[in-house]
Amino acid sequence: VSINVIQYGLGPIGIETLKVAAQRSSIKLVGAIDIDPNKVGKDLGELAGLESLQGLRVTDSLAAVMARSKPDVALLTTSSRLAQALPQLDQLMEAGVNVVSSCEELLFPWDRQKELAERVDSLAQRHNVRVLGTGINPGFVLDELVVTMASVCSTVSKIEAKRILDAGKRRGPLQKKIGAGMSEAEFRDLASKNALGHVGMAESVAYVAAGLGWKVDSILETIDPVLCRKDTDSAVGKVSKGQVAGLRMTGVGKKGGAEVITLELQMYVGAEQPGDEIFVQGEPSLRTTIEGGIPGDIATAAKLISSIPRVLQGDPGLLKPLSLGFE
Amino acid sequence: VSINVIQYGLGPIGIETLKVAAQRSSIKLVGAIDIDPNKVGKDLGELAGLESLQGLRVTDSLAAVMARSKPDVALLTTSSRLAQALPQLDQLMEAGVNVVSSCEELLFPWDRQKELAERVDSLAQRHNVRVLGTGINPGFVLDELVVTMASVCSTVSKIEAKRILDAGKRRGPLQKKIGAGMSEAEFRDLASKNALGHVGMAESVAYVAAGLGWKVDSILETIDPVLCRKDTDSAVGKVSKGQVAGLRMTGVGKKGGAEVITLELQMYVGAEQPGDEIFVQGEPSLRTTIEGGIPGDIATAAKLISSIPRVLQGDPGLLKPLSLGFE
Repeated sequence: VSINVIQYGLGPIGIETLKVAAQRSSIKLVGAIDIDPNKVGKDLGELAGLESLQGLRVTDSLAAVMARSKPDVALLTTSSRLAQALPQLDQLMEAGVNVVSSCEELLFPWDRQKELAERVDSLAQRHNVRVLGTGINPGFVLDELVVTMASVCSTVSKIEAKRILDAGKRRGPLQKKIGAGMSEAEFRDLASKNALGHVGMAESVAYVAAGLGWKVDSILETIDPVLCRKDTDSAVGKVSKGQVAGLRMTGVGKKGGAEVITLELQMYVGAEQPGDEIFVQGEPSLRTTIEGGIPGDIATAAKLISSIPRVLQGDPGLLKPLSLGFE
Repeated sequence: VSINVIQYGLGPIGIETLKVAAQRSSIKLVGAIDIDPNKVGKDLGELAGLESLQGLRVTDSLAAVMARSKPDVALLTTSSRLAQALPQLDQLMEAGVNVVSSCEELLFPWDRQKELAERVDSLAQRHNVRVLGTGINPGFVLDELVVTMASVCSTVSKIEAKRILDAGKRRGPLQKKIGAGMSEAEFRDLASKNALGHVGMAESVAYVAAGLGWKVDSILETIDPVLCRKDTDSAVGKVSKGQVAGLRMTGVGKKGGAEVITLELQMYVGAEQPGDEIFVQGEPSLRTTIEGGIPGDIATAAKLISSIPRVLQGDPGLLKPLSLGFE
């Protein structure tokens, strides 16, 4: 059985996703969309550096794709923010196309953007499609995998999960996101304007709470710079002592005044012990570690592709985790 | 929403499962079945040592339970072998009751017991119910979690997973299963008659292959004794130097002559580095470890309970993993 897939968004994650899709014989790529005039009309094989994609041209309109194919699923990788991805998402749902998206806020918008979440959910139901926001972070390490580990516990009292990445080994665009090379003042200014930082900590907390079946009273995000302790050359540029090396963010969920969900992300140049760690305190308590941490970019692309079978079955709507029924 | 649940089988796993079920407010226990004359007629609260279950009496017939309630799900914990659990499974399906079972061979019988698997699948479909075999091992550590980790890889070339447990810290009945205290000859004799050992290694291999989308050419199980190196007192009794301390089993899947799936279970008195480890070789390669290993009994009970929402939705039949579409 071949699944007709379109790639919507040809930024770094979109290209990575295309490459993974091209390796799976169950997937047939039937279209690629981007609004960048430098990409529209280009051959997809050239753009992605993949012979097997030759002959397919980038278009800037879904209508053009729909005119010559019947896509089952769109991989939507245009924005981290739901409000920005929404027009494209609406288009796809109205065309009857299921959606798997790397949009960070789409992982679990039911808490911070309840109205938008309900709007997407009801539109998806009306058009009989399923919409899933996923990825690695958010989408897997600090949320889905946490709930998966909790599923083998009879009781859970607390969740602590931590992801530490050496930003010096990641692609260039990351620099802007983590503020590497900035002054502390500049970092704090941009952070206060939401112009910097990782999107999705609060969404991961809300996802974990929903997956466990917990009602949390509050969800809070924090962001702080990690300062560089010695001059370092890295893949995201030179960072000098005293400058910002990257960030430390947390997402915290409280119940009855107590921190019951604590998620932490450290992403900075020169991080010494990169890795992912999930601690579920309960019966039994389980500490799970992933050596070195899951590399975000390639794994996010893989996760989008792996999620395709899931959005092709079950009830229509904006997908959320099944609750484990803890309280 | 309250889910009506019956417990079928009141051995150690059944009692453990009852205890977990009693803690979830979403679950209403409406019946308990066992054929043991010493249990039939007994008060379930007394049997499980749980006040909240008082007033419910053990019966030996499903008909009696069906006469006074409408169960949504049965937790079937009567046997490791599918052939032995089959009469009860048939009864439940025919009564329109969904089933979550700890029956080890039910995790993935499509390889070694294809006809039985098809029979269960078609009967489940005919009666519009879902049947799931699950647990910790098999069911999670060496299969479901392996596929979960592989879902974030763009390619996978090899799977290696290993579970090491100190049998000296586990409940008594385990002694018989692992042969602790036997002579090597006695162990090998019983092992050759399938009268000893862990059930499910081959099923886990077949599950992983199906989950990845791999066609393996052969699946092989091995079992060997681990000999005791110094006299040890343990929860499963005294084991002397030279006697069997426990076992080492493997399940191996081969593709084109190469071992592509290697699962290993070590379970013996005095195991020094207990823990679970999953290695997915691919892009990226991921090494995941669970400190100390997931304790099997309590976690199996928790996993059965956690799986209840899953068997209440989706297409009817004998559930199997969605394929990730690797080749």
